[in-house]
Amino acid sequence: MEWIGFDADDTLWENETFFRSTQAGFARLLEGHAPPERIAAHLFDTECRNLARYGYGIKGFMLSMVQTALELTENRLPGEAVAEILAMGQEMLAHPVHLLEGAAGAVEALSDRRRILITKGDVLDQERKIALSGLAERFDAIEIVQHKTPDAYAAVFARHGITPDRFLMAGNSMNSDVLPVLQAGGNAVLIPHDLTWLHEQGDDPDHPRFHRLERIADLPALVAKLTP
Amino acid sequence: MEWIGFDADDTLWENETFFRSTQAGFARLLEGHAPPERIAAHLFDTECRNLARYGYGIKGFMLSMVQTALELTENRLPGEAVAEILAMGQEMLAHPVHLLEGAAGAVEALSDRRRILITKGDVLDQERKIALSGLAERFDAIEIVQHKTPDAYAAVFARHGITPDRFLMAGNSMNSDVLPVLQAGGNAVLIPHDLTWLHEQGDDPDHPRFHRLERIADLPALVAKLTP
Repeated sequence: MEWIGFDADDTLWENETFFRSTQAGFARLLEGHAPPERIAAHLFDTECRNLARYGYGIKGFMLSMVQTALELTENRLPGEAVAEILAMGQEMLAHPVHLLEGAAGAVEALSDRRRILITKGDVLDQERKIALSGLAERFDAIEIVQHKTPDAYAAVFARHGITPDRFLMAGNSMNSDVLPVLQAGGNAVLIPHDLTWLHEQGDDPDHPRFHRLERIADLPALVAKLTP
Repeated sequence: MEWIGFDADDTLWENETFFRSTQAGFARLLEGHAPPERIAAHLFDTECRNLARYGYGIKGFMLSMVQTALELTENRLPGEAVAEILAMGQEMLAHPVHLLEGAAGAVEALSDRRRILITKGDVLDQERKIALSGLAERFDAIEIVQHKTPDAYAAVFARHGITPDRFLMAGNSMNSDVLPVLQAGGNAVLIPHDLTWLHEQGDDPDHPRFHRLERIADLPALVAKLTP
């Protein structure tokens, strides 16, 4: 493998855990209006309905929380609760970046390959996290895309002169980091995170260019095995 | 001039007019709580305070409207009003793109130069407008940046091998399209829009590489005059 692609959220650093703790606070805010499972299901549904409109990222998540709260209370939501939702989102936006165990070491150990960070979502928020991660300088290229589709990967390959079969993408999401890369002719390794958003889950594909690891710390060994 | 840079919002297509009509609806929503000027001033202040956090774009504007309404009513904002603000923002996100008079013709007339679209803001929303504009295919390159700083322009120049003194940026904003380009060594032409956001205004610089036009339709003639 000449090129190693790294997903960022929940592959290099924590992300979903902040969404989950915010969701827990959101459910507490609405207790009395609906049971926690119904709140979570309605929020997930609102996020999915809004994905084409808002894209991925915290600002869209904030707007979906406000909308969900209004819908669940039939607009009988006190202003304080709306203000609380805004404050929760602003806290997420200001949150420090926590690198996952082994992430920095794996990126460092692969310095003899070309390393490219490929992440999706809100550009401003992703740039903030990349800067705070301290890893920005390690990458030969950084790509922030709106959706990780096969076409989006093909465009990244074209932009950097990447030969797909010499590219390995490492990430925690089957739907974003694995399947579209395989479709675009690349190799992919799934490194699941304890918390992976429902929208990102999927079954293991039966594919010769698919791999799976438990820990990102094992990525350098996999790369060495694939290209001795 | 070998390269012509085009700003998008309020240079090629209407943008501020939609913000203004939404702001008028927002002021109507809050009438009884504050006079219109105070509502507008408070919204502008909230937007400025949130710029580093939310960046440019409609989602951040929606969140700033909700926050402003809460602050002006001391959280006594009915849920219906919050729902109305979300609906106004979603309408902006779905709004068709109206090209400004002469914009398509000017872009077309400069087909013997290299044309690059340089816009700032929310990537998803900018991509939507670029696609709807019907102009995407006319450009040799499209750059969506977070802030139009001298460094951001220098990075665009480096990425595309642009010699600054052979680059002319055309746009409606002194602070985003003119001053940072001059600082980065390029040429700039201000084409004011009737409605230019307060945050973007500024005095004409006394600078040999600065130009001013009343209408984008005159841009091809200016380019011909500068590089006969």
